[in-house]
Amino acid sequence: MSFKILQEKISAKNNPAVMGLDPKLEFVPEHIISEVTDEFGRTRRAAGEAIFRLNKGLIDACHDLIPAVKPQSAYYEMYGLEGLNALYRTVEYAKSKGLYVILDAKRGDIGATCEAYSAAYLGESAVFGESVKILGCDCLTVNPYLGIDGVKPFIDDCVKFDKAVFVLVKTSNESSGDFQDVKIEGGGTLYQKVAREILNWGSCEHVGAVVGATYPEQLRELREMMPGTFFLVPGFGAQGGAAEDIKHAFKPDGGGAVVNSARAIMCAYQKQDAPDAGLEFGRWAREEVVRMRDAINGVRKL
Amino acid sequence: MSFKILQEKISAKNNPAVMGLDPKLEFVPEHIISEVTDEFGRTRRAAGEAIFRLNKGLIDACHDLIPAVKPQSAYYEMYGLEGLNALYRTVEYAKSKGLYVILDAKRGDIGATCEAYSAAYLGESAVFGESVKILGCDCLTVNPYLGIDGVKPFIDDCVKFDKAVFVLVKTSNESSGDFQDVKIEGGGTLYQKVAREILNWGSCEHVGAVVGATYPEQLRELREMMPGTFFLVPGFGAQGGAAEDIKHAFKPDGGGAVVNSARAIMCAYQKQDAPDAGLEFGRWAREEVVRMRDAINGVRKL
Repeated sequence: MSFKILQEKISAKNNPAVMGLDPKLEFVPEHIISEVTDEFGRTRRAAGEAIFRLNKGLIDACHDLIPAVKPQSAYYEMYGLEGLNALYRTVEYAKSKGLYVILDAKRGDIGATCEAYSAAYLGESAVFGESVKILGCDCLTVNPYLGIDGVKPFIDDCVKFDKAVFVLVKTSNESSGDFQDVKIEGGGTLYQKVAREILNWGSCEHVGAVVGATYPEQLRELREMMPGTFFLVPGFGAQGGAAEDIKHAFKPDGGGAVVNSARAIMCAYQKQDAPDAGLEFGRWAREEVVRMRDAINGVRKL
Repeated sequence: MSFKILQEKISAKNNPAVMGLDPKLEFVPEHIISEVTDEFGRTRRAAGEAIFRLNKGLIDACHDLIPAVKPQSAYYEMYGLEGLNALYRTVEYAKSKGLYVILDAKRGDIGATCEAYSAAYLGESAVFGESVKILGCDCLTVNPYLGIDGVKPFIDDCVKFDKAVFVLVKTSNESSGDFQDVKIEGGGTLYQKVAREILNWGSCEHVGAVVGATYPEQLRELREMMPGTFFLVPGFGAQGGAAEDIKHAFKPDGGGAVVNSARAIMCAYQKQDAPDAGLEFGRWAREEVVRMRDAINGVRKL
């Protein structure tokens, strides 16, 4: 769905915090590991089942508080077909709970190939002449390195199916400057050029930008350059971004951005003193979501 | 496997032409469509089966002539779990025929996430304490937009498991210049800077570069800048690149590059006059591989 719908969900829940679902097996509480290995042995099938049960528990515990979830595709791909099956089940379950689903897959390729990726995640695939929804996410992250050819097929589907994409502009990682910060002839940096291009590529309802919480100065600057653009702000929490760092991500009215945290929410139970805190991983995740919501709401206009 | 092994396969078969496996259902001959829909109905299961049978037929027909195959992940992802199952079966089948497998997935993300992608495609995943091979390709394409953090986890696995990556430098698509050709302060373009960085990131045995057949001048220039680097040259055939265009991709000894063609080989049968040419799709693919091999060998040192 477009960013209009995402903004409605944020407003309804008074929360721009998105729960990242990056379910490595190390994040799964012991009692779930016991359950799935008793049932399926120490197999990939059990691994897929474990990460789905973790996700389901997190969604059950937090869905009334959050507008959206952001599964990171890599953490499902790493467990093969069984992991991908867990991704499909997770997306379906999140949608059944009314959550907006942002698939973080950072796809990017030549045009014809991006049509195929878009069919997989935003649009529909032709299967023996019939148009079939495959994963049916609301939103996808996209890599701009191949230029407009590699983004346009996604945007076309966004318009057709009322979806949205976040294009990488300034990512949250330490080495994001290797190329993104390169100074270009005529002034400015590469990420600023990407930001300017995005404004030409599509409407703000469908085309957003990824800007890391770990670069507060760039957040401020990009918000000025792109006053109407929706931002996805990763890197909050475990990666080091704090509420103060992201205050400039929002529009003057307090909207226009979602902030993602995965590990800090998913693994909140691991920070508790009680040895069996894992049994209540949902409760601790929920407390962390509330803490994150309140911290972020403290720096944005309400 | 590293590029040393790939070069050995190229030399043994006297052929640097790689068969791209981008199996859209439209490319599948009618008799296979009939077989799979009779067996499984007009379902996604049938779609996955159809694309696997096409791939298997192409591999059976051409494996003695080609060093490698390059499945493009998007064309499997677009058919959901059933398509991904076909990808897994295709990789396994290609390896059983002694082919080098380059997965074209253009992954790129922050470091921790790239560790997960690398576990999926090059290395191993920890499943309940045991290290397990997931897809086990020989080589993966990688996007550099996030800088070295996003590439290093792949390179580490390349060293550990004797694999290789091709990093996108100058892609074959029309808009590749949008960002890749941007002139940077201090001289040169962004893609030249990416090329220079790659030389620092890892050895030529493990870290190669993608340079499109559609940009012959850049191929020549990048070969000079990166004399020891292995090149993956896409865009030959259906995308417009011809043998003359790619002659500079090779090292002076005629090695150091593979040239990919997908549609021209996979759909060679569709260009035949005979109405039942699809029954012999493997034969027509084989003839196209021979034509491509001979054309490329005509412009490189043997």
